[in-house]
Amino acid sequence: MSYFEGIAPIAFEGADSDNPLAFHHYNPDEIVMGKRMEEHLRFAVAYWHSFAWEGGDPFGGRTFDRPWFDGGAEAARVKADAAFDMFRILGTPYFCFHDVDVRPEGADFAENTRNLNAIVDIFEEKMEQGGPKLLWGTANMFSHRRYMSGAATNPDPDVFAFGAATVKTCLDATKRLGGENYVLWGGREGYETLLNTDMGTELDHLARFLHLVVDYKHKIGFEGAILIEPKPQEPTKHQYDYDVATVYGFLKKYGLENEVKLNLEQGHAILAGHSFEHEIALAQSLGVFGSIDMNRNDYQSGWDTDQFPNNVPEVALAYYHIVKGGGFTTGGTNFDAKLRRQSLDAEDLVAAHVGGMDVCARGFKAAVAMLEDGGMEAALADRYAGWNGADAQNMLKTETLEDIEARVLRDGLNPTPISGRQEKLENWVNRFV
Amino acid sequence: MSYFEGIAPIAFEGADSDNPLAFHHYNPDEIVMGKRMEEHLRFAVAYWHSFAWEGGDPFGGRTFDRPWFDGGAEAARVKADAAFDMFRILGTPYFCFHDVDVRPEGADFAENTRNLNAIVDIFEEKMEQGGPKLLWGTANMFSHRRYMSGAATNPDPDVFAFGAATVKTCLDATKRLGGENYVLWGGREGYETLLNTDMGTELDHLARFLHLVVDYKHKIGFEGAILIEPKPQEPTKHQYDYDVATVYGFLKKYGLENEVKLNLEQGHAILAGHSFEHEIALAQSLGVFGSIDMNRNDYQSGWDTDQFPNNVPEVALAYYHIVKGGGFTTGGTNFDAKLRRQSLDAEDLVAAHVGGMDVCARGFKAAVAMLEDGGMEAALADRYAGWNGADAQNMLKTETLEDIEARVLRDGLNPTPISGRQEKLENWVNRFV
Amino acid sequence: MSYFEGIAPIAFEGADSDNPLAFHHYNPDEIVMGKRMEEHLRFAVAYWHSFAWEGGDPFGGRTFDRPWFDGGAEAARVKADAAFDMFRILGTPYFCFHDVDVRPEGADFAENTRNLNAIVDIFEEKMEQGGPKLLWGTANMFSHRRYMSGAATNPDPDVFAFGAATVKTCLDATKRLGGENYVLWGGREGYETLLNTDMGTELDHLARFLHLVVDYKHKIGFEGAILIEPKPQEPTKHQYDYDVATVYGFLKKYGLENEVKLNLEQGHAILAGHSFEHEIALAQSLGVFGSIDMNRNDYQSGWDTDQFPNNVPEVALAYYHIVKGGGFTTGGTNFDAKLRRQSLDAEDLVAAHVGGMDVCARGFKAAVAMLEDGGMEAALADRYAGWNGADAQNMLKTETLEDIEARVLRDGLNPTPISGRQEKLENWVNRFV
Amino acid sequence: MSYFEGIAPIAFEGADSDNPLAFHHYNPDEIVMGKRMEEHLRFAVAYWHSFAWEGGDPFGGRTFDRPWFDGGAEAARVKADAAFDMFRILGTPYFCFHDVDVRPEGADFAENTRNLNAIVDIFEEKMEQGGPKLLWGTANMFSHRRYMSGAATNPDPDVFAFGAATVKTCLDATKRLGGENYVLWGGREGYETLLNTDMGTELDHLARFLHLVVDYKHKIGFEGAILIEPKPQEPTKHQYDYDVATVYGFLKKYGLENEVKLNLEQGHAILAGHSFEHEIALAQSLGVFGSIDMNRNDYQSGWDTDQFPNNVPEVALAYYHIVKGGGFTTGGTNFDAKLRRQSLDAEDLVAAHVGGMDVCARGFKAAVAMLEDGGMEAALADRYAGWNGADAQNMLKTETLEDIEARVLRDGLNPTPISGRQEKLENWVNRFV
Ligand SMILES: [Co+2]
Ligand SMILES: [Co+2]
Ligand SMILES: [Co+2]
Ligand SMILES: [Co+2]
Ligand SMILES: [Co+2]
Ligand SMILES: [Co+2]
Ligand SMILES: [Co+2]
Ligand SMILES: [Co+2]
Repeated sequence: MSYFEGIAPIAFEGADSDNPLAFHHYNPDEIVMGKRMEEHLRFAVAYWHSFAWEGGDPFGGRTFDRPWFDGGAEAARVKADAAFDMFRILGTPYFCFHDVDVRPEGADFAENTRNLNAIVDIFEEKMEQGGPKLLWGTANMFSHRRYMSGAATNPDPDVFAFGAATVKTCLDATKRLGGENYVLWGGREGYETLLNTDMGTELDHLARFLHLVVDYKHKIGFEGAILIEPKPQEPTKHQYDYDVATVYGFLKKYGLENEVKLNLEQGHAILAGHSFEHEIALAQSLGVFGSIDMNRNDYQSGWDTDQFPNNVPEVALAYYHIVKGGGFTTGGTNFDAKLRRQSLDAEDLVAAHVGGMDVCARGFKAAVAMLEDGGMEAALADRYAGWNGADAQNMLKTETLEDIEARVLRDGLNPTPISGRQEKLENWVNRFV
Repeated sequence: MSYFEGIAPIAFEGADSDNPLAFHHYNPDEIVMGKRMEEHLRFAVAYWHSFAWEGGDPFGGRTFDRPWFDGGAEAARVKADAAFDMFRILGTPYFCFHDVDVRPEGADFAENTRNLNAIVDIFEEKMEQGGPKLLWGTANMFSHRRYMSGAATNPDPDVFAFGAATVKTCLDATKRLGGENYVLWGGREGYETLLNTDMGTELDHLARFLHLVVDYKHKIGFEGAILIEPKPQEPTKHQYDYDVATVYGFLKKYGLENEVKLNLEQGHAILAGHSFEHEIALAQSLGVFGSIDMNRNDYQSGWDTDQFPNNVPEVALAYYHIVKGGGFTTGGTNFDAKLRRQSLDAEDLVAAHVGGMDVCARGFKAAVAMLEDGGMEAALADRYAGWNGADAQNMLKTETLEDIEARVLRDGLNPTPISGRQEKLENWVNRFV
Repeated sequence: MSYFEGIAPIAFEGADSDNPLAFHHYNPDEIVMGKRMEEHLRFAVAYWHSFAWEGGDPFGGRTFDRPWFDGGAEAARVKADAAFDMFRILGTPYFCFHDVDVRPEGADFAENTRNLNAIVDIFEEKMEQGGPKLLWGTANMFSHRRYMSGAATNPDPDVFAFGAATVKTCLDATKRLGGENYVLWGGREGYETLLNTDMGTELDHLARFLHLVVDYKHKIGFEGAILIEPKPQEPTKHQYDYDVATVYGFLKKYGLENEVKLNLEQGHAILAGHSFEHEIALAQSLGVFGSIDMNRNDYQSGWDTDQFPNNVPEVALAYYHIVKGGGFTTGGTNFDAKLRRQSLDAEDLVAAHVGGMDVCARGFKAAVAMLEDGGMEAALADRYAGWNGADAQNMLKTETLEDIEARVLRDGLNPTPISGRQEKLENWVNRFV
Repeated sequence: MSYFEGIAPIAFEGADSDNPLAFHHYNPDEIVMGKRMEEHLRFAVAYWHSFAWEGGDPFGGRTFDRPWFDGGAEAARVKADAAFDMFRILGTPYFCFHDVDVRPEGADFAENTRNLNAIVDIFEEKMEQGGPKLLWGTANMFSHRRYMSGAATNPDPDVFAFGAATVKTCLDATKRLGGENYVLWGGREGYETLLNTDMGTELDHLARFLHLVVDYKHKIGFEGAILIEPKPQEPTKHQYDYDVATVYGFLKKYGLENEVKLNLEQGHAILAGHSFEHEIALAQSLGVFGSIDMNRNDYQSGWDTDQFPNNVPEVALAYYHIVKGGGFTTGGTNFDAKLRRQSLDAEDLVAAHVGGMDVCARGFKAAVAMLEDGGMEAALADRYAGWNGADAQNMLKTETLEDIEARVLRDGLNPTPISGRQEKLENWVNRFV
């Protein structure tokens, strides 16, 4: 019997429906800006939170009761059945996974690889039968105790080697399944204390690791994007891939800025002190925007809460920048979100995704409406219009500091401030969300 | 009559003295690692907090009662007398200032320049008569309302021009006074809301501004360092010079990483979510460490509290990395610290600096003792020793991902974790602080 | 000429209007739950932020350019004209003020009182001519330097006396103007450092002060509510009226819990680590809910940003608890919100209030719809239904720990967890906002 | 073989010793203020962190490798042997435990009780043979999934009953072992979302639970103190026992303020936005100070890091208030602190406690020296001296607001501010730490 027995595929019923297991705003087939909404949003379900996470927190263990917990290969197969069943119910076009989410843990690297490949066989079959596509694959190099001091940045070179070999197998699996991206989240690439850490050396090793991955990607002809996922801390006290700006500087230092893009998570942006739209807009302006992990962090809990998104105004501003920048290419909207640990039921898991997809659809449609209205872009054009003048352009190109001083003196430049009109723009946004 | 009437020059009396206006740990002439302590620490007093700040906060105005408030040129001279009197009392070898700290505000750029130069004449005279040297000069491009939307990143090119001309005059003044560095803190280079902000354009303008400054520095033969001071937010919601990693990426993007270094402030590190020693160690590993603004932020107040340093263990870890990296070259220890607004008296101002200097001296001596003991460096060498092996070196240089996988399989690599010994290292530090 | 020349009274034009100076959702005359929306929401404009604040922040001074700045009695009259003009334009039924917002600062208490009474004469006249009513009055006992160490909690009893006398005059003024409440915000009732603070004594003094106010209120027959406004910190490091729970404990200790209620501000709730709805619901369950200061704090700026509200989902949850608890009695919705300092224009000030009122109206209507739907209340009733059983009721009333243990053993009680259904409830809320 | 094989009992060797497994500052037999240091500090080891915690975090599982993991009754006995062996090595006079730390989990309440009593038999024997005493016992009502929605505040009355019965057994065990206190930490007494929570009802239930415990304590003649341990959040979004002020208001509301005292943890104070010394001083002034959980929270990690204390200046201020208030009665210094998860070795566990005990001893001795010097108390007496005057005393006792106003007018009271001298006091503290 299916774990989701009795839950029918989710249909679009419109905003007035009060069916909690229907879409009220997400209509995959609705044409927006010339394309189906499904192709814009490119939703993915995250295997880890939905099928591997047990409901534990730092003060308590498993609360969920899933038939596939505590097993080996057979349990992994039961889990896969449940996962693909939920993908079917939700109609999500993509999924994402780490190796450890899908396979039993083996005694060594060889057994891990065999276990991974066995489950990839199953996935391949299910995907051929109409299952979703793979948005991205990744290797979990933070949960096993061997990685407690990092993978690429571990003081022990054997851990670096074990991690490198593991990424190879995961990249192989991702390619085999037609994955459109490969993600690295450096959950333990950082430090607990500077007292025992050689930061410069660790960053060099991290760059070397990434070069190895990029070289291998080219060698095997993997055409997806390699993505780094920034996060400032947790589990470690300090993580090297802190935020967009930090990762950009790292890529630039090591000559990787044209090879690697970023997977941005709302919760990680918040933990780093930024809004989600800031991280998106910055990545776009630096040419490294790749994909998003959609979720929501509690602003008042200092850890990664990975809740399902539920604030439409916030989601709208994120999609505004995504759509303004041309939308996703290889990337998509992955729900890196988990149920609260008291939400025990299969129906909770489905409903959480339905709600998240609806929130994203509302935010996306609001973003499109704002762009089509053009009010914000017009305000921006107006605010910076002075830079189109000849003096301003000369100042950017040829004048020296002395030339500028001379001009200030000659013209008696004494600029008066002009309103930034923030509240009016905020009100304007509220017309759409 | 001097504002500091009755306060004698501060003498070193040793740790057992209970004289609150004596040094208990800072002995400028004590030789440490072959050099006078004064030459190691290179203390500077900040003109702004000590002589221009009035004791206001967002909910109340001036509490201090200084004879030089509310005046023009004459008040500026009275202020300068008081300042140099305190420099003499403290025996600090350096000071730092913004243009607006020292001159009256003029009606336009020309008058500002005249006012600045008039006070620089006075400074020059005082410095020739044995006053302290200038650690760095800077322009305040955030307090006047013309800068409310930024200086280099203002949507109005005339504000960019006004700011550029102003920096020219301040760099001229700094050179004339023998300043050893020139600092830029971009207090308004950032945004209040992304809704009215073109981030990519603003960053381009910020880089152009910096190139103008660097070019001019070379033209006039200013031999000091150009320093950027990172801070994540406040006054703006988001400041572009967020932290060390962010500024490094910015410099690298615009080809400025060999021209500009960083002035790091404890309080700004804290506001960005980092420890001070993290920012120092990172700047050193990226080759951009310049100078420090010593102070202390309340970890539980989310704004810049700029308190005097008073926690020796924290200060010791900061100096540990500074000394380990070779100490200051052009940089120094500037007290970017202000009295609490209830600390009204002249004696409070002197005592606060005395306490801060003592805390720094204790931290510095503890840092030297830790380095001379060598315990932490030995632990680091031991922890990373595996990387000296041939396999590890090959992995960093020549092996591919496939080679590594083959080696993991062949050797059955299955690394077991090794203790990071954090508590033992923390205990070791506590032997010195 | 009016400062708001050219701005017509704001009319309700409905959700489809694109007029930025019209109400799109706030229709004062719309009947909701049997009462006009105006009477539900009871909007008030705050004199301080809109007419006294100059646009300064810790790193820069005045940006606004208002004709009434820098003057004495005549300027105060010009300011009052502008204020009542804006009240008329907005159609807000209430306003609120501190003494120092409306009168020039005098040389001593007697002059302050005369100045206050002179402006109260003017207000009285304007209010008789159809101006708004007074939601509450208050005394500013935090801006003047005499209050730098607190008012009621000042170590100097003369400051306590000055503050007490000042509150008397403000309570007199509030009564004379028909004010419906009197508010105390203890901005400096707290400490900068425990090192110089006798917390127990200061709390005793704070309670004595409050008893004096309550006694005087009864003596003069003021029928409004006395309200305390909690805030955890800023300007001080620690404020005694930290949050709802803290103030409740204080009132209870000193026997004031039946005399004093609370004025709750969104931004202060956030700074204390709570959601606004938490503070409202807690105050209601403790019987001390009074009124609200509506605004919005940036979750990522650790200081009081006092922005205009703009997130409808958040506002809806706040009003949900207010309406569920029976709505306002003497209280109302005061906009303790200020323009960003770059928003220079008269139109910005009007638009900000219009936007805020619309956001509140949307939130309020969503709250009513949620209550009328009843979904959340039904879920609550269901979740706690077990407590209606006889065993449960006995356990609350008569059983001892031994009885309960015996019952657990006898009945083999071994409860299994039941889903908390958080995501479903969040989705349900999203149907209304 | 002992888990701590090869680690000799820790001896006091003095500050100059470089033996990492010796006390450098903690000398249990040193007489301070007429009493042995051991009797002042009353150190306790926490069973949970040292013997039950496995080194997991939200992103990774067990890193520690202890012979007693994964077992039943026999493993519990092995664990107890190791624990008492470490107590012997450290010479700590006390320990603390939860039921689940020490016993295997049973299938139901009856089996849990049998398992607990079996291990209590063992403890009793070990304690008779010279093991440490029990500072406090407690029940873990947050880890098992039955408590996922709270224990006393669970919507299901059967969970309340199960928890109540469990506390009875733990209080019985605590009494039998001569425990000097009984602690309740309400880790799940709070909520994840207000949407599914009836806060008023839950607080009533929490109070009922506490009354049951207090009644039973008296019935069985348990003479120790009942202690609540405040914490603001984590694991829940909001915990009812938020901080000292909140718990005091709760006790006061329900008439429990004379029956229950508080166990204060440094890390929990920090998470609530307070300094540790604030919470201690406040609890003392409210008459509810009981005991402390000594540890250290990373100020920049928003979760409970429970690190070993290592900052002497901070610890000194905490002990200053404890000693000033008369020291511990039933309470003590419990190390609610855990190793970092990379600190794998038995020696790490011992060294961490040794370092923590030394830090506490230094802080305690500095606190005593500050009190004996009297500088801070003299400054306080001076600062509040005005309140000893007749006018001030009248104002506190008999004057009305009108009387005070009359006096202000008559005497022309116009107080001028006096310096708070914060930096001088901070410098003074630095003479002792
Ligand atoms: Co993610
Ligand atoms: Co996350
Ligand atoms: Co600075
Ligand atoms: Co600062
Ligand atoms: Co307010
Ligand atoms: Co506020
Ligand atoms: Co604790
Ligand atoms: Co804790």
